[in-house]
This record gives sequence, structure tokens and C-alpha cells, in this order.
Amino acid sequence: MSVTHARGFEAGGLACGIKDSGAADLAVVTTADRAPAVAAGVFTRNLAVAAPVQVSRAHLRDGSATAVIVNSGNANAATGEAGVRDARRMCELTASGLGCAAGDVLVCSTGLIGIPLPFHALEAGIPKLTGALNGATAAAEAMLTTDTVRKEAVASVAGTTAVVGGMAKGAAMLAPSMATMLAVITTDAAVEPDALQQSLTRAVDVSFNQLCVDACTSTNDTVLVLANGAAAADEPLAGRDLDAFTDALTSVCLSLAEQMAADAEGATKLARIVVNGARTVDDARRAAHAVAASQLVQCSLNGADPYWGRVWSELGASGAGIDPQLVDIAYGGVVVCRDGVAALHDEDALAGVMAQRDVTITCELKLGDASATVLTTDLSPGYIDENRRTS
Amino acid sequence: MSVTHARGFEAGGLACGIKDSGAADLAVVTTADRAPAVAAGVFTRNLAVAAPVQVSRAHLRDGSATAVIVNSGNANAATGEAGVRDARRMCELTASGLGCAAGDVLVCSTGLIGIPLPFHALEAGIPKLTGALNGATAAAEAMLTTDTVRKEAVASVAGTTAVVGGMAKGAAMLAPSMATMLAVITTDAAVEPDALQQSLTRAVDVSFNQLCVDACTSTNDTVLVLANGAAAADEPLAGRDLDAFTDALTSVCLSLAEQMAADAEGATKLARIVVNGARTVDDARRAAHAVAASQLVQCSLNGADPYWGRVWSELGASGAGIDPQLVDIAYGGVVVCRDGVAALHDEDALAGVMAQRDVTITCELKLGDASATVLTTDLSPGYIDENRRTS
Repeated sequence: MSVTHARGFEAGGLACGIKDSGAADLAVVTTADRAPAVAAGVFTRNLAVAAPVQVSRAHLRDGSATAVIVNSGNANAATGEAGVRDARRMCELTASGLGCAAGDVLVCSTGLIGIPLPFHALEAGIPKLTGALNGATAAAEAMLTTDTVRKEAVASVAGTTAVVGGMAKGAAMLAPSMATMLAVITTDAAVEPDALQQSLTRAVDVSFNQLCVDACTSTNDTVLVLANGAAAADEPLAGRDLDAFTDALTSVCLSLAEQMAADAEGATKLARIVVNGARTVDDARRAAHAVAASQLVQCSLNGADPYWGRVWSELGASGAGIDPQLVDIAYGGVVVCRDGVAALHDEDALAGVMAQRDVTITCELKLGDASATVLTTDLSPGYIDENRRTS
Repeated sequence: MSVTHARGFEAGGLACGIKDSGAADLAVVTTADRAPAVAAGVFTRNLAVAAPVQVSRAHLRDGSATAVIVNSGNANAATGEAGVRDARRMCELTASGLGCAAGDVLVCSTGLIGIPLPFHALEAGIPKLTGALNGATAAAEAMLTTDTVRKEAVASVAGTTAVVGGMAKGAAMLAPSMATMLAVITTDAAVEPDALQQSLTRAVDVSFNQLCVDACTSTNDTVLVLANGAAAADEPLAGRDLDAFTDALTSVCLSLAEQMAADAEGATKLARIVVNGARTVDDARRAAHAVAASQLVQCSLNGADPYWGRVWSELGASGAGIDPQLVDIAYGGVVVCRDGVAALHDEDALAGVMAQRDVTITCELKLGDASATVLTTDLSPGYIDENRRTS
């Protein structure tokens, strides 16, 4: 269901020939009545930004959008002015197929960088797609690249009849400040543009931005949300209802983020790095990110080796305020380091923890009350294999 | 030769039983007359700092030292107060063996974190070692961990009779702000303490600090230099001679750094990331480090794949001032990206470049005159294999 879980949205996906494999590579999401919905977006902070991000930012300036067109298999990044023209033409083709304004179409691309879009494929594919909207499952499938499974999530807005649904893709380059990831989310809640942007920013901050697989920040990262208000004829959400909406949006983003981490390229472990007792949330996040991004910690996870010395070292090098002599480190609740030195522990219990696919590493800094959690994975030969050749 | 290339130094190394493998694991360098030399050091900036670093910093406060004792196979890190006592006892045993003051002995350890030193091995080993100084080659051998070859370098101070020689170890955790690396350097030049510290800081800044293999900063990084003045009876170096000394010291540090990168764990490629045309040196370094540290760029190097899109993306995400639309990227002189888009190029020439072990990636930012170079390697299954299990 995902992006059509909310009332008044349609979606579809198909293979238009961008991917040599013949897999699906073109998706669209639109309001059912083709009227603009309230829309908001969060984009990559990379200065090297792909053409579709530039175009979507411009089209979002009025806080509304009717549709999102997504292609996979080509990032339309490092493609210069021609790339920007291609991204605009994708919006125009989508608009004429759906019967809306080109300025109300947002565009996302994901795939290889530096290769011009094969536009003939899109010229044939977009009209075909907009003419036969075959549903959210096909859309969620068509946005994938090296992902092995679709990522979809839904949630209800407590105390209202509104719901939120979303789809995403993301497999490598999962990093702080976003990842090679696209997410399109829809809701039938009525939300004002500024409120929608604030809700989305908060949701992304505690979900996608707390993912860190390889610390690479992509050129194309985009999270979009469309709110058509179909669930209610009355006023936009405010107060407690608006908070409930933010909670539902956050829950969808968190679920999609966890699905991404679980499907990260080559990953055999999903690790949750928890830092407690930091002086500030910024310190907690910085420390957790440093541990999560560490190639050496990730190698240890691959070997199911609870080598906490690397965790301790990364905390110290993170730039966060820590006193190394106070730090406790636990794997799945088994404390292996107490007050900065090795702690006696139950070896069998620890081996049991490390044998699991999901491992939680908890670091107690004992300096304050702030906490943060970052998701990461192990570093595996499969990751290298996936990324060593583009062809 | 390395640390005994300069007149008036002795060295030795042996296996004392710290390493289960029975390989050499204890090294010492000392002035031949046991008189304190002028000494300087640069240490890890990690807050999680090993005991020997704490003790060496304290012993260096007076700017002089007679000897350096080094063990490999155990980092004496995350070992608390007991670890600090052990590091001090290493200095005391060395001092009584050599006949000098314990406060004039510096100490370095490298190996696994979080395990108490097997002190009985050192209690037997240090007197044996100081009683039979078997030379610089044995010392350089004994400081290695996962290194496959000794790292040694020498240089002459132009315009003087003085020379500089050094030895180092370092295989993984090679990163900005130092690496898991130890280096001990000696010179028979006469240099005043402040001048020696300044020369060393400058030399480290353009050598070891420009290495970036896995972006991990260790708990034990240490570079030490001892200057005994044996080459000259007269005044300490000043002016042009002091500059020549800094040049020689830098040349030794650079050579050791390149040897480290070439011997990095699992590496099949040695890559030189050159950034030109940055607005500031800081921008140039930041950009070069971001490209060098990128797991995805390193995976591409492993696959000999000139996928410049990742380089372009990392430049943009680096935090350095760049205009992505101006960037040129070349592999070994073959320009593959010009003004931020794909450039036509000679495919055969490019394939020839990528087939080499040494690859230079040059990024022209076209914003200013500042440049920086950072050394890195590919990310290989061998790196994971080396680091996934500590035992």
C-alpha cells in the first residue's frame, strides 16, 4: 500500500529501459484529483547536487505539488545544464500525462553519477506510466537500485482519521546528513505548508539522519511528503493533532530507515549504537556516529568479535566530550568495559549476543543525561563486491 | 640503519613473549653515552589515550630524553591506573638496564586495546634487551604489528654533517590527525628543544597527518625525535641550517608515511589524492581527505574502476568550498570529468592508469591557488579479513 494508503493518491511503476537489466525503473505518485497537495521536502546537504534535486527544490518553493516522478538506474548527477533540462522535461512529460502543471511535479533520480539520462526511454515511458497507474507496489519496486526488497511503511495519526504512508529506496551511501536514499510519503491529513515542513524536518532528523552505513553523503538524497487533506473537510491540524501527525510521520520515516539499514549492501549484521549519559544531544550523536561509521568497528561486527577497544577509541576520537576513564560499554546488555577498563563478564552470554543478526552496543558516558542512537551495519566482503565495479 | 644512522645512538630488539606468535615485540633506542638528548614528540589527539602516551608526555615536559622503549602486541590502552603504573615500570626497568634516569625514558606501546600488559614478559625482556643492544634492524622489526615489512628512512641535513634516521610501524587505522602508528627518529644535529618541537610538528603535519586509510584515529599514536648534537661541537642549528634540518626531518617522515600507506592492511592500490585550486590549504586538505576516506572511492580503487562520480560527490560533501560545476577530475593525467560533467577521454590510456598499483587522482577546483595531497589505499576483502577478528 504505502503511498496509496492515504485516501486520494494514486501511483504506478514500470520498466522504461533505463536499467540494462530490464528491471522496473520509473515510478510516479500523484494526487487522485490532480489538484496540488501541500508539499514539503528535505534534500541532501552535499554541494555536489544532482539536477533533479535542483529542480524539485525550485518546484517546492510554493509549498505545493501534485505528483512525484522517480527514475532509478541513473542519478542525473554531474550532468551539468543538460541534466537540469532533462529533469525539467521529466516534470513536463509527467504533467502533460497527468493533466497538471509542470511546476507542480517533483522529480527524483537515483543510480550512477555522471552519465546523461537516456531520455528516449523516459519520453516513451512517462506517458505509458501516467496512462496506466498500476499501484503503489509497482511504484515502490521501480524506485529500487541495489536494494533487495521494497521498503514501505504506514502509520495512523492518533486521535484523527488521517493516515501516513511511504516508500523508500536506499542501500549504500547511508550516512549522517542523509544517504543515497529517496523517500516519498503521502498523507490525507490536512497540514499547512510550514507545519508540514517542520514535521518532516523533525521526522528526518531522528530517522534517516541517524543512519550511518558508510558515511557517504549522496548527490541525490530526497525525502518528500504530500498532504492532500482528504481525511478531513475541516481545519488544518494544530496542537495535539499536529503533534500526533508528526509522530506518525516519524514512525513511517523510522520504519523506512530501519528497513534501509537492514537491507544495506552486503550487510550481515544490523547494529544499533546507543550513547547515553552525554552532556548534550549533539555530543551523544557525534559519539554514536563516530562508533557507527568506524570501519574497524564494522569489521569487528562482521567477525562477530566484541572488540570493545575500538569502540572506546572511536568515542575518544569523536570530538564529543567524554572522559575515557568513566566509559562503560555493553554488547546486548553484557558489560565488557566498565570505567574505561575490561570488565569480567559471562563469555557464553556475550557469544550468544554476537551470534545474533541484530546487535546493540551501548556506551554509557556518565557525564549528563543526553542520549542518541545510530543504526549501522557490519562491513562485509559483500559490500566491497557490490561497490568495486559499476559495470 | 634507521635510528642508528645518526652518530651516538644505539638500538636493539627481541621477542620477550608478549606476542603469542613468538615474533619480536620489544625495541629500545638510546643515546650511546646515556646522556639525555634534546627530545620532542607529537601524540594522538584522541581523548581515549593509552597509558604510555600519558607517561611519555610527562617525561617529555623537560624537552629531553635518553631512551625510548617500545613494545608491540599490546597497546596498554583502556587499562586504567594499573596501565599507567605498568608504563612507568617499563621506563624504570629500561633506566636501570641502561644506567639513566627513569624520567629520561619515553615509552610506546602498540597492539590490542583493553588487555593488561603481561608484565612478567617485560620484567625478563627489558634487562635482556638493554644488556645486549643488537642494532637498529632488530629494533625496527620488533615494533611491527600487522605490518609486513620494516619501515626505515634516513636523510642528510644539507649544508651540515648532520643526518636524520627513523623507524616506524603502522598498518591499519591510518588517519588524519595521526594513525595507529609509532615512529622513533634520531638525529646527531644540535637543535634546541623549542626548535626541535616546531620542526617535528611541521614535519608531521605534511607527512603522517596526510595519510588516510580508514579514518580511524588510534589511542597510541606517537612520533618521537631525539637530537644528541653529536655531529657538531658548536652552536645549535639556526636560520638556513635549521630549515635544512626541518627539510631532512620532513623527508624522513614522508618516506615513513609512504611506506605505511604502501603496507596498509590488505591494500592492493596506493592512491594519491591531489586537490588543486582550492581557496585555502584547509579547504584543499578537507576535500582531499574526504575523497581519500571514502569507502566508496576505496571500493572503486579495489575494482580498478575510474568511477569519478563518487569523487565528485565526496568533494561536494567534504565541507570544503567548491563549485561542483567547475570541477575537473583526472586519473593519472587522463581527464574524465571537466567542468563537473563527463569528459571524452582515451579509454585505453585510462585502463592503463587503473591497472597500475599507484594511482593519482587529481581534482582541480579552480577557485584559488591552494593544494593538498593525501595518501590512501583501496578497501579490499583483505582489510576486512585482517580486522574482523582479533584472535
